[in-house]
Amino acid sequence: MPAKAQKINPDLLKERQKASFKTEELAVWWNGGQKKLENKRFLEDYFLNDPALQDDLPISYMSHKELYEHSVKKSYIVLKKLHEYQKKTGNSIDNYMALLGGNLGSGLIKEGNPLTVHFVMFLPTLLGQATPEQQAEWLPRAWNCNIIGTYAQTELGHGTFIRGLEARADYDPKTQEFVLNSPTLTSYKWWPGGLAHTANYAVVVAQLYTKGECHGIHPFIVQLRDEETHMPLPGIKIGEIGTKVGMKSVNNGYLGFEKVRIPRKNMLMKNAQVLEDGTFVKPKASVLTYGTMMFVRVAIVGDASNNLAKAVTIATRYSAVRRQSPIDPNKPEPQIIDHVTQQLKLFPQIAKAFVFKVAANYIWDLYNQITGELAKGDLERLPELHAMSCCLKAICTADASSGVELLRLSCGGHGYMECSNFPTIYGIATAAVTYEGENTVLLLQTARYLMKAWSLALQNEKLVPTVAYLGEYRDSTRFTNWDGSVPQIIEAFKFVAAQKVRLAYNSVEKRRQSGYSQEEAANLSGIELTQAANIHCRAFLLQMCYEQLEQNSKDTSPALAVILKDIIELYSVDACLTHLGELLRFVQLDESQVSQLQRRLETVLARIRPNAVAIVDGFDFHDRVLSSALGAYDGNVYERLFQEAQKSPLNQEPVNKSFHEYLKPLMKSNL
Amino acid sequence: MPAKAQKINPDLLKERQKASFKTEELAVWWNGGQKKLENKRFLEDYFLNDPALQDDLPISYMSHKELYEHSVKKSYIVLKKLHEYQKKTGNSIDNYMALLGGNLGSGLIKEGNPLTVHFVMFLPTLLGQATPEQQAEWLPRAWNCNIIGTYAQTELGHGTFIRGLEARADYDPKTQEFVLNSPTLTSYKWWPGGLAHTANYAVVVAQLYTKGECHGIHPFIVQLRDEETHMPLPGIKIGEIGTKVGMKSVNNGYLGFEKVRIPRKNMLMKNAQVLEDGTFVKPKASVLTYGTMMFVRVAIVGDASNNLAKAVTIATRYSAVRRQSPIDPNKPEPQIIDHVTQQLKLFPQIAKAFVFKVAANYIWDLYNQITGELAKGDLERLPELHAMSCCLKAICTADASSGVELLRLSCGGHGYMECSNFPTIYGIATAAVTYEGENTVLLLQTARYLMKAWSLALQNEKLVPTVAYLGEYRDSTRFTNWDGSVPQIIEAFKFVAAQKVRLAYNSVEKRRQSGYSQEEAANLSGIELTQAANIHCRAFLLQMCYEQLEQNSKDTSPALAVILKDIIELYSVDACLTHLGELLRFVQLDESQVSQLQRRLETVLARIRPNAVAIVDGFDFHDRVLSSALGAYDGNVYERLFQEAQKSPLNQEPVNKSFHEYLKPLMKSNL
Repeated sequence: MPAKAQKINPDLLKERQKASFKTEELAVWWNGGQKKLENKRFLEDYFLNDPALQDDLPISYMSHKELYEHSVKKSYIVLKKLHEYQKKTGNSIDNYMALLGGNLGSGLIKEGNPLTVHFVMFLPTLLGQATPEQQAEWLPRAWNCNIIGTYAQTELGHGTFIRGLEARADYDPKTQEFVLNSPTLTSYKWWPGGLAHTANYAVVVAQLYTKGECHGIHPFIVQLRDEETHMPLPGIKIGEIGTKVGMKSVNNGYLGFEKVRIPRKNMLMKNAQVLEDGTFVKPKASVLTYGTMMFVRVAIVGDASNNLAKAVTIATRYSAVRRQSPIDPNKPEPQIIDHVTQQLKLFPQIAKAFVFKVAANYIWDLYNQITGELAKGDLERLPELHAMSCCLKAICTADASSGVELLRLSCGGHGYMECSNFPTIYGIATAAVTYEGENTVLLLQTARYLMKAWSLALQNEKLVPTVAYLGEYRDSTRFTNWDGSVPQIIEAFKFVAAQKVRLAYNSVEKRRQSGYSQEEAANLSGIELTQAANIHCRAFLLQMCYEQLEQNSKDTSPALAVILKDIIELYSVDACLTHLGELLRFVQLDESQVSQLQRRLETVLARIRPNAVAIVDGFDFHDRVLSSALGAYDGNVYERLFQEAQKSPLNQEPVNKSFHEYLKPLMKSNL
Repeated sequence: MPAKAQKINPDLLKERQKASFKTEELAVWWNGGQKKLENKRFLEDYFLNDPALQDDLPISYMSHKELYEHSVKKSYIVLKKLHEYQKKTGNSIDNYMALLGGNLGSGLIKEGNPLTVHFVMFLPTLLGQATPEQQAEWLPRAWNCNIIGTYAQTELGHGTFIRGLEARADYDPKTQEFVLNSPTLTSYKWWPGGLAHTANYAVVVAQLYTKGECHGIHPFIVQLRDEETHMPLPGIKIGEIGTKVGMKSVNNGYLGFEKVRIPRKNMLMKNAQVLEDGTFVKPKASVLTYGTMMFVRVAIVGDASNNLAKAVTIATRYSAVRRQSPIDPNKPEPQIIDHVTQQLKLFPQIAKAFVFKVAANYIWDLYNQITGELAKGDLERLPELHAMSCCLKAICTADASSGVELLRLSCGGHGYMECSNFPTIYGIATAAVTYEGENTVLLLQTARYLMKAWSLALQNEKLVPTVAYLGEYRDSTRFTNWDGSVPQIIEAFKFVAAQKVRLAYNSVEKRRQSGYSQEEAANLSGIELTQAANIHCRAFLLQMCYEQLEQNSKDTSPALAVILKDIIELYSVDACLTHLGELLRFVQLDESQVSQLQRRLETVLARIRPNAVAIVDGFDFHDRVLSSALGAYDGNVYERLFQEAQKSPLNQEPVNKSFHEYLKPLMKSNL
């Protein structure tokens, strides 16, 4: 949200004046409607402009320990303020999540809140997997923060493949307790946010043993620390795992168990159960736990859009202020946004932010529709949604992560400064490549679904919507309908995806026939499998982008509709040129058609150029959410860089003590 | 260098036992011969095993200020130890650079030494640009560290385009002094290492004004701080610029001048001069200053190889130890290096480390040969070397930087930990994308050279060796000689490069003819120009790799020769598949030939697999240079991760004070 009083950099001012559409209209669209936008702005004003929540010392100057202590303090102030807000407005508890995650949260505590996992994983797990009796016992205390929980699943030696977890819970019918143990170093829990020094309870995922038999992994509520003294309880080995690329204040911890006993009722028993005598009762259906995983992945696609939108706001504004390298030697150095090579770094990232946002919304609707069907016992579309959520999470996080980094580099040396905020945004964006399912593993899961779909296509079976094209293109090996229109670009991508699916399928089959097991054959064909899933996902994104933005542009002003159509054009043409190898392999395209794509790219970049600043303004990021000397609304880049430097503790004294201790002795000696 | 006494992880031990060649032979080759390898190992033992140079607290736990103070202290100890070593051995001063930069330096002070710029830029500038009289005055004091210097060129508002610098030095003939001023905020010097609180002198690059005329940028020696008190001198505005992605302890500073007067003799006058009366005397030739820039860029190509080699050593060893995700559900989880998708992340990076090393060596020899010719007044090959050094710096640093990040991601969550050392290696590798000429600007410089060469080719003029292929392929538009052999892959890449040069040239011409100036036309064709430079560079790298490694493999054992040939094969085939779009656009390749490339890729990955660990062992990195819990020679990954975590200051007390201050009040209140 622009603060109106600042003196605006004149180059930025000019950019805004020449925009051909109304930024505010885009802000309403981007933020989901007038009411949501107003609510967002109200909350930003309420929280981000509170003097008690400003940082005097930029956190990058703090030691790791100071940063943790600072974050706990700030979380406390935020929660208290949130409580006051709720008392005043009567708004529901849902706001916890909106406030602690998301942009407002990052504007308050930019390197991650040690309490986030309590709200986004501990509480939802109780909601989703506890029985009504367990909920009655635990939920009120958790809602009120009388206890603080975390979610302990990943282990030092076990990540994405959760069936490999080693921590175990052995049922002892004599005392009606589970005994938790970490039999190896690799079985130590590792990574959970807030686990190290913040939480006093955890949902722990462990292999359940009863009556001498292992029944796979199940969730247990375990108390970790004394509620009065916060001292670790007997048998609990606990601490933090150390410093990381980003998310520096989420207090990731490790956790080992040495014969830790918990009552039987602490196993979350909404699904599977262990009876008093140790009898294991199977869950009725395991599909509901699928749901949470998919829910998280859909949310991550939205985050990918948001991270990219933040980074491209910073880079676009900076590129309109920065002047460097003359185009014409007789004229002053131009704004770097006028270098076409710079436009190619910026504008496709703007387009991706739009497309990922649209895809996240679409999948969100699909998720709700399908979970509605699930509730009625209809499981038909579940594998399809699962497959789509896997590849979307993988592709969108990978593109967002590399996009943020490209944007940082597009700002030259100043992008390397912490005060640009690129390092923090990247730290968050790149973490998503790994967590909630490592990207390569996820692409292989989608590929497995595509292999099944191809096999159905070969048998002339009906296919669900997202893979229906496999049937259509099953029997042709060359796409000859290229006319360059966006609908035909989409068809070409589907065609290419079908070919890549066929190639991968045939590779697996060939290896099977030569004597490898199905699994070995799939592993040996892993490269082609991930490529097939990749292109499948890109065909889907293209179609989403086209259908949704075309649809949207019917409800906007003509001026904004032009922008949305340019976004479609840029995303599509850029996709063609980025994946030219795959297109040329299967699509009939002559050299003049390829050259034409290059001209179209240059043309659409030039069309977006005069509106670029207005478009990123339309994302409506509060300056504190951007938290960037390069990207603030006023564009006073150099003044802000200089002001940020003045905050360094080293700059508070003209001579550092190390001069007297080491430099002077060095200079006065004769080496 | 492997420490022999550790208990080695059994998976790693097996990998080493099954290697088909002798690691030690590769270590000799990689490190430039037996003598150099021995010297490297001696120095590593002497410095890295010194207890006074171990860090008790990992630096990632320190605050920014503590880290600076720690680094100055350590630099002092290192220099004292170096002095003792020189007294004992009589070795020359050259060792300063070898020790402070390079792997040994990073093993000692991993986030950068605040004294490095003194040795690698201040001293060389005195050597290269001072008159004999000036050298007599300044060099002995600088050699002995009686003064500590830095090199101040880049400004807050001016980077790669150095003619745009604003700081000015006005000659005052009355007092025979220069008056230094920073007329604007953007003219403040910004970035020089050691400038903030370490150096007391600087070479300052400023616009020279005399007799009312500007004579462009020249270097001046300026005293910044009092030699006794270290207080900034009057008119010197100085401090540090703040925290950054990496290179966290090099003490980058800013510097502004307010009427700072320095004697006339402080202008470095080996080239241009200002006489007592203010008369400006032009330099005889400006080509020699070119030399330093090229020297630095060649060194950066070597660094790119080294950064990649370090990262891939860590990732390969970790991938042999880590077990995850079953291939066959009835077998235990495999080493992740057995997933073919993982091999594709690792092995091409091994190949690139080899190729960039070979290219750096080759260009180094060419540089020496050409500077020899320069000394004899022969300038013919200078523009060629300049063009080649520009694109090599750009491509190798870009590939190394993205390669390091890919390798970090290939290690999953643990790669995100600081103790993996990927974040530090990446911080250094990615900085090189921007410094010493931003990569896009450098590619455009190479492209400008290629445009001139194409124009010569059109006139049937003779072309210098690195662009001779432009003449050969001037008149054909389709390459029909593909047989898949490496020599023909190289030819195909040259052919593609020639086509891309032609397309870019024609785009510029067409825009000129439609009324744009040459400069505007070049800017509008910037995307095609950078693409042409990119492929030109890749064709060169392919040829280097092939010629040099083929040659080398004649002098090695047959066992090592097989490895070198596999490196060539992998690098070539991977290049084809990565640039498939460009190949298919201009090279006659049918679908079965493309499929064959995919099979060749899989085959060579499988061939490298059993030797992968032995190959990275052959780079012979000392454990402290790798500084990684994931990549140590012994492969005790989980033990080391756990040990590193124990060092966290937060783990030194069971309950952090923030519990009593904030968490307990939060938990005991009723929100």
